[in-house]
Amino acid sequence: MTGLVLTTFRWVPEMPRGYVRDLRIRWALEEAGLPYRVESVPFDARDADHFAHQPFGQVPWLTDGDISIGAILLHLGFRSEALMPADARGRSQVMEWLIAALNSVEMASVPWSIFVFSGYAQETPGRKCLDDFLAARLGHMEPILAAREWLAGAFSIADIVMVDVLRLVDRLGGLADHPACRDYVARATARPSFVKAHADQMAHFAAAD
Amino acid sequence: MTGLVLTTFRWVPEMPRGYVRDLRIRWALEEAGLPYRVESVPFDARDADHFAHQPFGQVPWLTDGDISIGAILLHLGFRSEALMPADARGRSQVMEWLIAALNSVEMASVPWSIFVFSGYAQETPGRKCLDDFLAARLGHMEPILAAREWLAGAFSIADIVMVDVLRLVDRLGGLADHPACRDYVARATARPSFVKAHADQMAHFAAAD
Repeated sequence: MTGLVLTTFRWVPEMPRGYVRDLRIRWALEEAGLPYRVESVPFDARDADHFAHQPFGQVPWLTDGDISIGAILLHLGFRSEALMPADARGRSQVMEWLIAALNSVEMASVPWSIFVFSGYAQETPGRKCLDDFLAARLGHMEPILAAREWLAGAFSIADIVMVDVLRLVDRLGGLADHPACRDYVARATARPSFVKAHADQMAHFAAAD
Repeated sequence: MTGLVLTTFRWVPEMPRGYVRDLRIRWALEEAGLPYRVESVPFDARDADHFAHQPFGQVPWLTDGDISIGAILLHLGFRSEALMPADARGRSQVMEWLIAALNSVEMASVPWSIFVFSGYAQETPGRKCLDDFLAARLGHMEPILAAREWLAGAFSIADIVMVDVLRLVDRLGGLADHPACRDYVARATARPSFVKAHADQMAHFAAAD
């Protein structure tokens, strides 16, 4: 027993299923071969204990023994070389791309996706600046992903985040002009660990219907 | 000589001065008392070497000997206990808040600031969803910052990022209803290391005028 416990919502509506962020952690845990179990919290009634673990009322969090972990992928990266190499240079590259995925690409993709989900058409004032923000970031990623299989040498936590960020853009039609980004998503999501993590998340939410 | 070299733009227009992201790194280096020197790259003509260090053509980056570092604050956190404690629980809390600042708060504040900078009035369709996105995140931060001095026990790299994120919101009038956020920014920016880092950035860009 490692004592790793992943907490996510018990149930979510259909639309976000397959995209809830516990997927990133399930995927990493599968890649690393670390045993874990899943616990659930209510989606609609988030209590003080939930906010104590996750200050914004989101999911997931991981407990490792008596430590509650919010920066979960970094934590797992330090635990498993399947997720992040142990040498200083390799770690630096993985952490750089992890932060880039979260703070350079996802910072542009999430507000864009909020606009698209909310039904603001391309003619909406302001939509163009979010389209341009995302297009600039994808424009930098496209030649990088055309030239390499994974972001930082071997597959790593940086790929888990970047792929999950790009998956959502792809779902909303935002990768039409970026074939190398699409190919990267395709080869990553073909990995057995992703397939298992995705199926497990879908089954978890379906069980609560 | 530590060999730490911080690279930023040689010059930027007046508006972003005091907010260019090398400030976060200058501040951290001053807090840690680590000697460093500053090098410059052109603002308008970003060459292949620039993109090799920073894939999105942004600044800053840090070189530590022959390693080029993108996730600079994490790197410095591991180097200095003035920036991140050495024990597992303390590190986990700092990393959690660092990621929260970058991926939960700044993800909402930057698109909001792009809208405000671009002059989209509050009546603009879509502005409301960005206002609401930011308000939700600030609403969670307000009671947290009312109840503690720093995010993760002692002052850390998590505070450097969160404060710099909130400073920009404050500059654009977005903290009017969040006094605890404003007080947090005020007590952090009163630290001698911030004052020196800010003055150094202003002097750096002024010297290139």
